[in-house]
Amino acid sequence: MARTQGSHSEITGPRIRSAALALFAKHGFAAVSMRQIAGEVGVQAGALYNYIPDKQALLFSLMKGHMDDLLAACEERPALNTPQDRLRDFVDFHIAFHLDRPEAVFISYMELRNLSPENFAQIEALRRTYENRLEAILEQGRAQGVFEVADTKIATLAVIAMLTGVTTWYRQAGRLSVTQVQAVYWDMVRKAVAA
Amino acid sequence: MARTQGSHSEITGPRIRSAALALFAKHGFAAVSMRQIAGEVGVQAGALYNYIPDKQALLFSLMKGHMDDLLAACEERPALNTPQDRLRDFVDFHIAFHLDRPEAVFISYMELRNLSPENFAQIEALRRTYENRLEAILEQGRAQGVFEVADTKIATLAVIAMLTGVTTWYRQAGRLSVTQVQAVYWDMVRKAVAA
Repeated sequence: MARTQGSHSEITGPRIRSAALALFAKHGFAAVSMRQIAGEVGVQAGALYNYIPDKQALLFSLMKGHMDDLLAACEERPALNTPQDRLRDFVDFHIAFHLDRPEAVFISYMELRNLSPENFAQIEALRRTYENRLEAILEQGRAQGVFEVADTKIATLAVIAMLTGVTTWYRQAGRLSVTQVQAVYWDMVRKAVAA
Repeated sequence: MARTQGSHSEITGPRIRSAALALFAKHGFAAVSMRQIAGEVGVQAGALYNYIPDKQALLFSLMKGHMDDLLAACEERPALNTPQDRLRDFVDFHIAFHLDRPEAVFISYMELRNLSPENFAQIEALRRTYENRLEAILEQGRAQGVFEVADTKIATLAVIAMLTGVTTWYRQAGRLSVTQVQAVYWDMVRKAVAA
């Protein structure tokens, strides 16, 4: 019995998260009720509370899950030496990762305002960790004289904003493949920080 | 009497728009009711309908107003000749204009999903008009051999995303003035598109 319960829970939990993600992305966090999420999953509203204490916890879980996935995927990238190679890899990775999950990206930017202060602080810290990876590459390149960046902090935020913007316009059926998009952005980023 | 009515309407209309902007930015379009907007303005919900047919019309009016302001402000910029001067002016203008109205910027990006198809098409056309201004500068620079851009369309979207990102992190009490921020971004944009 316990095993069946466990399996059931392992299936329902992800289904709740997936339904919540789609509903939050479509209507916005504040407009979606736990009842709507339950309806989408096909369970009674009360049953949701076996999985998640409230809507705030659900939002936080989605945003933290997104950041955890991002940082874990970073760790799996090959170890590279030169700042140019590391920057190129960052650009390719960031574009591919974010194009794969536009709803999570949308929510991660748009619903920061709806996080409780404690939850916001945790998500901010994870974002900082991610930004620091790029900033370290820029600093390495600057120290070696191959990059020239007036302010590595601003350059980090500028490059991330530029790359993430891909999710707002890229369409899979469009004229460009992901590889082509990565090449065009790499060309701009490479030049933007070049010495 | 007519004059008093007219003045009253001229004051209430902007107050409704301003209240709606703040509420939409804080809670999201779908979560805000006409009743809440009326409450913020201090009028009966029914009175709102003297000014605006429905919430969709209000959202469209805010987003169209933002784009109209943006395009009108563009028209007032000095006429410049070289693509470099024109690009520098675009960067300065875009940053200053968007930093001045973070709520309108936030709504203009986040609530596109809530526009009716006809309204979306109109806003998209206005955005395209704005993007075309930058793309024309990049094309001029490319034709003159001073810019080298693999794809002027993508470069346009990339530069706009990079510059608009300033609104997500810039704080007036922070370590940098707007002029300093403009200089840092200009340095990156200039290099990103340079031949």
